[in-house]
Amino acid sequence: MSQLLSVAEARLRLLNAFSPVESEQVQLAHAAGRVLAEEIVSKVDLPSFNNSSMDGYAVRSGDLDGTGPRDPIELLVVADIPAGIVPSLRLGFRQAARIMTGAPLPEGADAVVPIEDTNQYRSEKQIESGFSERVSVYRQVNAGDYVRPKGEDVCSGDVVLQANRWLRPQDVGLLAMLGIMQVPVFRRPRVGMLSTGDELLPLERPLQPGKIHDSNAYTLANQVIRDGGEAIYLGIAPDNEESVTEVLEQAISSQLDLIISSAGVSVGAFDFVRTVVEKHGDIDFWRVNMRPGKPLAFGNYRRVPFIGLPGNPVSAFVGYEVFVRPALLHMVGLNETSRFQLKVNILEAIESDGRESYLRAVIKLQEGNWIARLTGHQGSGNLLSLVQANALLIIPSGVKSLPSGAVVDAWLLDQFGGSG
Amino acid sequence: MSQLLSVAEARLRLLNAFSPVESEQVQLAHAAGRVLAEEIVSKVDLPSFNNSSMDGYAVRSGDLDGTGPRDPIELLVVADIPAGIVPSLRLGFRQAARIMTGAPLPEGADAVVPIEDTNQYRSEKQIESGFSERVSVYRQVNAGDYVRPKGEDVCSGDVVLQANRWLRPQDVGLLAMLGIMQVPVFRRPRVGMLSTGDELLPLERPLQPGKIHDSNAYTLANQVIRDGGEAIYLGIAPDNEESVTEVLEQAISSQLDLIISSAGVSVGAFDFVRTVVEKHGDIDFWRVNMRPGKPLAFGNYRRVPFIGLPGNPVSAFVGYEVFVRPALLHMVGLNETSRFQLKVNILEAIESDGRESYLRAVIKLQEGNWIARLTGHQGSGNLLSLVQANALLIIPSGVKSLPSGAVVDAWLLDQFGGSG
Repeated sequence: MSQLLSVAEARLRLLNAFSPVESEQVQLAHAAGRVLAEEIVSKVDLPSFNNSSMDGYAVRSGDLDGTGPRDPIELLVVADIPAGIVPSLRLGFRQAARIMTGAPLPEGADAVVPIEDTNQYRSEKQIESGFSERVSVYRQVNAGDYVRPKGEDVCSGDVVLQANRWLRPQDVGLLAMLGIMQVPVFRRPRVGMLSTGDELLPLERPLQPGKIHDSNAYTLANQVIRDGGEAIYLGIAPDNEESVTEVLEQAISSQLDLIISSAGVSVGAFDFVRTVVEKHGDIDFWRVNMRPGKPLAFGNYRRVPFIGLPGNPVSAFVGYEVFVRPALLHMVGLNETSRFQLKVNILEAIESDGRESYLRAVIKLQEGNWIARLTGHQGSGNLLSLVQANALLIIPSGVKSLPSGAVVDAWLLDQFGGSG
Repeated sequence: MSQLLSVAEARLRLLNAFSPVESEQVQLAHAAGRVLAEEIVSKVDLPSFNNSSMDGYAVRSGDLDGTGPRDPIELLVVADIPAGIVPSLRLGFRQAARIMTGAPLPEGADAVVPIEDTNQYRSEKQIESGFSERVSVYRQVNAGDYVRPKGEDVCSGDVVLQANRWLRPQDVGLLAMLGIMQVPVFRRPRVGMLSTGDELLPLERPLQPGKIHDSNAYTLANQVIRDGGEAIYLGIAPDNEESVTEVLEQAISSQLDLIISSAGVSVGAFDFVRTVVEKHGDIDFWRVNMRPGKPLAFGNYRRVPFIGLPGNPVSAFVGYEVFVRPALLHMVGLNETSRFQLKVNILEAIESDGRESYLRAVIKLQEGNWIARLTGHQGSGNLLSLVQANALLIIPSGVKSLPSGAVVDAWLLDQFGGSG
């Protein structure tokens, strides 16, 4: 091991070694959840034509001067304009056209009178079938009233979406509205996962005495997928140089952007990985001032970035969240790779050991404040207490104890809605 | 239209009409993001055997009585136990076994001395290759020290995961640890989406005068997918009975759990959908006291639930979030279908019209408090202001104005991390 680094220092060093991957074009139907690689400039106006924002009558506002509830003016209805039709007429003096929401205004019209302000408003159904030849209007309107003018929302040439942001359902909807069929997004970074340790068995094999199932592969793969990467399972390497070399050499041929390993649970076992990686690349072994997961290996194997995580299930999970996730989000093209931090009130006193600590907790909103309780014992092998948690509390370095009621930062591990 | 309902009443009526769909078994590798259909009971203990929580020496604690930094006791090292190996020896008087983290304790041993408390701790590398035949221990230990006892985290018969919850990466990891290869999850509900309106063109067709591209299909499909459903695009039906009938009849053959329509933008245009649905089912047309999106149609077509949303892009989006999402989450098996509501401080005065209003805003955390600013004009056709927002502010019914600084509830539309 070399230096004792703070979490922030270690994360910064790591992030500096990563860049966004290249982009690719995807069909709009597959764009949600991807990160935009270029800003999107509209080539059209939205709306693309002046249209009515109400069901009613297109009018020339000047014809209605002096109109009021007791002084209606009668107009001649010369056309019926449903949505989707381009009217070819031009309104003359005291002429009106019945118009539906979203339909283009006819020439000459500069405003719309809602049907509620006419004698045609007979029921809550609002629009009767057929139309009268005359309509009495009870209300004066100004030019532009109830009209959505061309370009009101978006003008041709406007930047509508910045690069380096996730595409959400509504963003994809806007792109459809603009007629954009393909979008440039960052491709999904390919992340290979290596599990090492003589004690590990794949899930498919029945447990034997002294062995455990490789759970980290499942946890880490799903973290990678959640964060926009593609997870490639490299398998389990027993604790010997030949096996580790074989797996890493295979990994190289699958064009990975990052290799992560979860070590055999002990530092000693990790030595085989270190030796192999050093032969064909570089590796630093950092001690990070954090709990769980003090040791962190970082380097490259044949120029593919390599991050070595601890083997204990909770340490591997937390190490991923603290270090791998920001690196992956950076590769995936996001500008902002840090998590929201909520301020939460702890409902019990907390002891810490002076390292920056990530503690499993359940947090909930109570009258607008977040409150937190730890979930059972915090051993780094105890995955159940992580499963019972919906947040990690972050106890700063240097803190040895906090009283009940203290405020700490927290990462929410559940998403606010949405799947996963 | 019939009654004027509050949002809460309308949502409750809607939810009462839905039940969770049936479950299916999926391989663990495909379980993340799905909702558990049954509780998971462990059939094993975790850990499944007593094992060391440190690299060090397995000892009989009684042998070390009176040991201290100045009074070391020397033990005979009779074995080396790496992880994954079942030791066959039994420790005798003043005997020790070198042991790696995670390795099973040999018989007779009741504690572990960390290597740091012995004369074998020479460097930060901690574990040297090979081992000495004798070790000097500088520390007394109690029975159980640095031992992770069998069943400490999970006992056979324990419920480790409740039904009706999302499976996250860490949950899948725990299932792998328990050796569970298949899990019962609710199948993805199949949601058909119908767009109606003479003005709509599919994205693939170039825009024509008076027409707009069907963007709701893209927004709604991705909302459905985000919330755990399968989205089936039924296509665009022009405003006539024959077309709407044709699309709905096709829909029925694809075994849908829910049909949602986004209407042609006007109430009049919706009448064709109403007429067709009424012929083969039932439909109620509710006025909901909300903005945007007052009209909401609810019923069934040939016993498939049907929800009719407004056609304006923002109204359709908000209508989905307020009504369709909880129904879908209920079908998908979740107990809790409502969103987290954050309390946010508005940084500007807000006018409302007395309806429960969902306003587009950007919110951010500032020194532990959420602050909010509206994103431009709130017309229900202005999708750009929704794209610029990361939250919807909820202005309660009956409120006509709020001063700057007031506190309102908000839904966060971005996820706290994660893709999409």
